[in-house]
Amino acid sequence: MVRSYPANAENGAFLDDAVNTYYEDHGDAKSYPLILIHPIGGNILIWHHEIPLLLKSGFRVIAYEIRGHYRTGMSKVGAYAMQDLVTDLEHLLEHLNIKKCTIIGHSIGGIIASMYAAEHSDTVDAIVMINSSPKKFEEKDLEKHFETRKIAITQGIEALAENKLRSFDESRDLFKDKKHSDFFRDVFTKTSVEGFVAATIALYTIRGNVVDILQTSNCKVFAIVGSDDDVFMRLLKETKEEMPRLKVRILEGSDHWVIIEKPDEMYDILIEFVSETRNANVGLSRTT
Amino acid sequence: MVRSYPANAENGAFLDDAVNTYYEDHGDAKSYPLILIHPIGGNILIWHHEIPLLLKSGFRVIAYEIRGHYRTGMSKVGAYAMQDLVTDLEHLLEHLNIKKCTIIGHSIGGIIASMYAAEHSDTVDAIVMINSSPKKFEEKDLEKHFETRKIAITQGIEALAENKLRSFDESRDLFKDKKHSDFFRDVFTKTSVEGFVAATIALYTIRGNVVDILQTSNCKVFAIVGSDDDVFMRLLKETKEEMPRLKVRILEGSDHWVIIEKPDEMYDILIEFVSETRNANVGLSRTT
Repeated sequence: MVRSYPANAENGAFLDDAVNTYYEDHGDAKSYPLILIHPIGGNILIWHHEIPLLLKSGFRVIAYEIRGHYRTGMSKVGAYAMQDLVTDLEHLLEHLNIKKCTIIGHSIGGIIASMYAAEHSDTVDAIVMINSSPKKFEEKDLEKHFETRKIAITQGIEALAENKLRSFDESRDLFKDKKHSDFFRDVFTKTSVEGFVAATIALYTIRGNVVDILQTSNCKVFAIVGSDDDVFMRLLKETKEEMPRLKVRILEGSDHWVIIEKPDEMYDILIEFVSETRNANVGLSRTT
Repeated sequence: MVRSYPANAENGAFLDDAVNTYYEDHGDAKSYPLILIHPIGGNILIWHHEIPLLLKSGFRVIAYEIRGHYRTGMSKVGAYAMQDLVTDLEHLLEHLNIKKCTIIGHSIGGIIASMYAAEHSDTVDAIVMINSSPKKFEEKDLEKHFETRKIAITQGIEALAENKLRSFDESRDLFKDKKHSDFFRDVFTKTSVEGFVAATIALYTIRGNVVDILQTSNCKVFAIVGSDDDVFMRLLKETKEEMPRLKVRILEGSDHWVIIEKPDEMYDILIEFVSETRNANVGLSRTT
């Protein structure tokens, strides 16, 4: 079921292969829209710190959940490519009649943002990738998911959450704090096994030409990354070499779950990036 | 349900994520075993010409159907990686207690064969890849499946079969013959939409080191390819450059469905390859 919160958008399914995307549309419909996209195993709950602050700063905030994550169901078939997630976003933004926006995505969310921006340079003023990159992974980067998928399929999503909490594989210190581990467990276990498996396999299908296309577009490209997140540190370093205009901020001593680890520092950078874009955008419309 | 034909193997599910692989085990259990693996959209029916001939030549023939194809169901979840198909084969050959064999695979079947052989050099004497290769695809090779998946999901597998028959995209002349187009339709439409979609996405997950590993193993590597199958002609040319010991036979004027297009020529090459392997293998066991 498609739902909006607050109730200021129409309800109804709008995807031809019957994915019912759950989204929330907060703030004034006339304000500049920010689109928030969560990581694999995440959902709208991960933005609980950011949404009220962004609203207070005068933005419209649209957050949604990708296939198989919490309140968004799967398609008629389980497997999907990244391009299908991009199409889902396309349908959502058409449904909401969004003509200009900034997309903020964490991990797979940032990949969706970058692929979408590459295809819709007229709509997307800027993307902010949080522990994410617009580049294809190397094979070794995705190998840990052979194990995570096996745990999810044979033991269930709760067992996988416990395994992640025990192995600290995505954060060195974060999950030692019960408040954070409880929150992680609560969020992560709302993911369906099917959704988790399909999303980790979709990571193989990232298009190889995203940086090249963004290169020649006017879309601003920002990144925020935890210094301990080796994979995205490497991919963003490579991206920066190919696209010097990329602005990257590194959060020292932080890992993949930077949103939970350093909420205040992360927010300060985020608001700086999106304010820059909004101001440039408002300035542009005034002079034209 | 796991089934065997003739009834000379145990019945019962044997995969921990509940994939029930349908297989047929023909011929004398003491004869040298050949494993046959069909392409995406295929199933055991495509081997109707080869199975009796191979049996007549004294081989044991084991043919099975991959996930989501005709009589083999899906896993609990829809999406899978190539590695999962390799694991399914691993479980089947363990179940049948196969210690030595040759694997013959068409298209995705040959990819499974090559990945399996790379991991089980002790078990696999030889692989024969029919319009297939052990190399990763380029992104452009897989792009046609954005359209095929869309047709399958929104219009069904029958519509996709008709689309393929109309567009001749996998064979220039074959489907002009009603006998062949009827056969193709009959085979192809036994595939579930979920199985087709998952398999085409799994093609992104081929391991990148298969040629390197086969290079250093004793496994013989053979290939048969239709001269009009541009993708596999290119990939096999690259494979041959990296692995000069690869034996490739090109069937002129033939395309992807070489098994149906040139059954006799194809079989002659096939029997030459597998006889060479069987004789080498028998010779080896005599002298040790």
